Amino acid sequence: MVASSANKEQIFIGIDGGGTKCRATVFSSQNGVLGTGLGGPANPLHGLDRTLESIMVSTQLAIQDAGLNLDKVNDVVAGLGLAGVNLPGLYQQIQDWHHPFKQMYLTTDLHTACIGAHEGNDGAVIITGTGSCGFSYVNGKSTILGGHGFAQGDKGSGAWLGLEAVKSALLSLDGLGPKTSLADILLAHFKVSDAMGIAEAMAGKPSSSYAQLARPVLEQAKQGDEVALAIVKDGARYISDLAYKLLDNQPPRLSMIGGLAEPLQEWLDKDVVENVQPAMQPPEMGAVYFAQNSIKG
Amino acid sequence: MVASSANKEQIFIGIDGGGTKCRATVFSSQNGVLGTGLGGPANPLHGLDRTLESIMVSTQLAIQDAGLNLDKVNDVVAGLGLAGVNLPGLYQQIQDWHHPFKQMYLTTDLHTACIGAHEGNDGAVIITGTGSCGFSYVNGKSTILGGHGFAQGDKGSGAWLGLEAVKSALLSLDGLGPKTSLADILLAHFKVSDAMGIAEAMAGKPSSSYAQLARPVLEQAKQGDEVALAIVKDGARYISDLAYKLLDNQPPRLSMIGGLAEPLQEWLDKDVVENVQPAMQPPEMGAVYFAQNSIKG
Repeated sequence: MVASSANKEQIFIGIDGGGTKCRATVFSSQNGVLGTGLGGPANPLHGLDRTLESIMVSTQLAIQDAGLNLDKVNDVVAGLGLAGVNLPGLYQQIQDWHHPFKQMYLTTDLHTACIGAHEGNDGAVIITGTGSCGFSYVNGKSTILGGHGFAQGDKGSGAWLGLEAVKSALLSLDGLGPKTSLADILLAHFKVSDAMGIAEAMAGKPSSSYAQLARPVLEQAKQGDEVALAIVKDGARYISDLAYKLLDNQPPRLSMIGGLAEPLQEWLDKDVVENVQPAMQPPEMGAVYFAQNSIKG
Repeated sequence: MVASSANKEQIFIGIDGGGTKCRATVFSSQNGVLGTGLGGPANPLHGLDRTLESIMVSTQLAIQDAGLNLDKVNDVVAGLGLAGVNLPGLYQQIQDWHHPFKQMYLTTDLHTACIGAHEGNDGAVIITGTGSCGFSYVNGKSTILGGHGFAQGDKGSGAWLGLEAVKSALLSLDGLGPKTSLADILLAHFKVSDAMGIAEAMAGKPSSSYAQLARPVLEQAKQGDEVALAIVKDGARYISDLAYKLLDNQPPRLSMIGGLAEPLQEWLDKDVVENVQPAMQPPEMGAVYFAQNSIKG
């Protein structure tokens, strides 16, 4: 319905930039999705040049995938969702980019994820993947909760679960914390024989490496390991509380997205889970809706 | 007494390499400390070339300070205490260095800190500064506890206190954790107005930046803030447990060193504090003793 209200001739491109990849979708109101493209990392907090390059790679691939000539890029209206552009400085840097599009509308990746999940309408999302974050957009007011980054925030996320598991395993192996099966799991995972081996294996590793340990933590919790159970319950408690806080804003819908959204559900409060509805469209379609709404406005 | 048993003509240099600086002390059995020198960072985990450069800078300054010619470096016997050389690979890399000394004896910074604290004799040390670690050397057997690095280990350290404070402040400001005065303290400290401002200020910062927040946490705990109190008690509990574990090895003495050793004492168990004795010599003198003991052996 959002699509039908936009200019029928206009082609849009929705771009969702993230820490590991950038997705682009070419869309027209008449014919729906025409093509998609995938580029590399596009988190401007980790480098502006790389981000702009990944945006252009995903854009060109999507335009080619749509069977269009590359110079068609000058005619499309772009919606762009990027991490970090809630910071005025970063927002301005991207705005100042000599982009090739006819027009470009910029907002946060949280906003486009939310718009996508609710097909262009108001709502709330909780993102639990490598990181964690809550966002709602209701009656023109946006609220961000969490999303403070690893290791100081992102509670309940994959990286957080992994870090807590490593901390607990190291304490257990030193005899300075409760025994946990996570110690054996991590020793085997890293093919090492002691705490220092685990510490070395993870020293200086990015949040994505910690997030790779999230599944074993969830498994050990299911198998009843007390330490893993306490970690998972603590993380899930935070995500449930985050949901209640977002629901206070009375969003019409609440969706959970990201790699941990499904496995975490069984640990969340029942009345939170009852409130969660499927995301209807991916963030890059949210970016398309955002562009359509912006051009109308 | 260690000194008197060594070759009376021999000049030694003791070198203590750390993450922020490298200290060298030139010493002779007959005349004691002849000179000292200070160099830059010398943690081989953070770069071998930089470490060797810092070792040479501190060495040359110490030799000049002792009123000796620089070519005298070829006649001195060096004791070297460095982080990370408990790893066989790193130990070998330093051993393969074409050093300028007559002889060089290499061990961990923990070992030389311990030997220094107990003037060449067996004992145990707990190091609480930016990081935390326990070490004992008794009857030829060394034990390392903790020291697993930020953010997965180093519980009770300055960086750990700072990280826990930031985590708590962010949860408090989001309304997703108990209220704490640490939130106001950190907002003022970073001159920002919200949680995201704190998160940005600390994003990607090294452990030393978190350690700079340790003092405010200890202050707020003293003033009765429940959250700060819980953090400090949790950290101190770990350090007390670390002490008990080291005392199990029956070291003749136990010392606590590092910037947090003194402020943490009031939070430790009484019977731990009663067992703590002052460090008699600094780590670089420990490195001298180590060289003297090694040359004898």
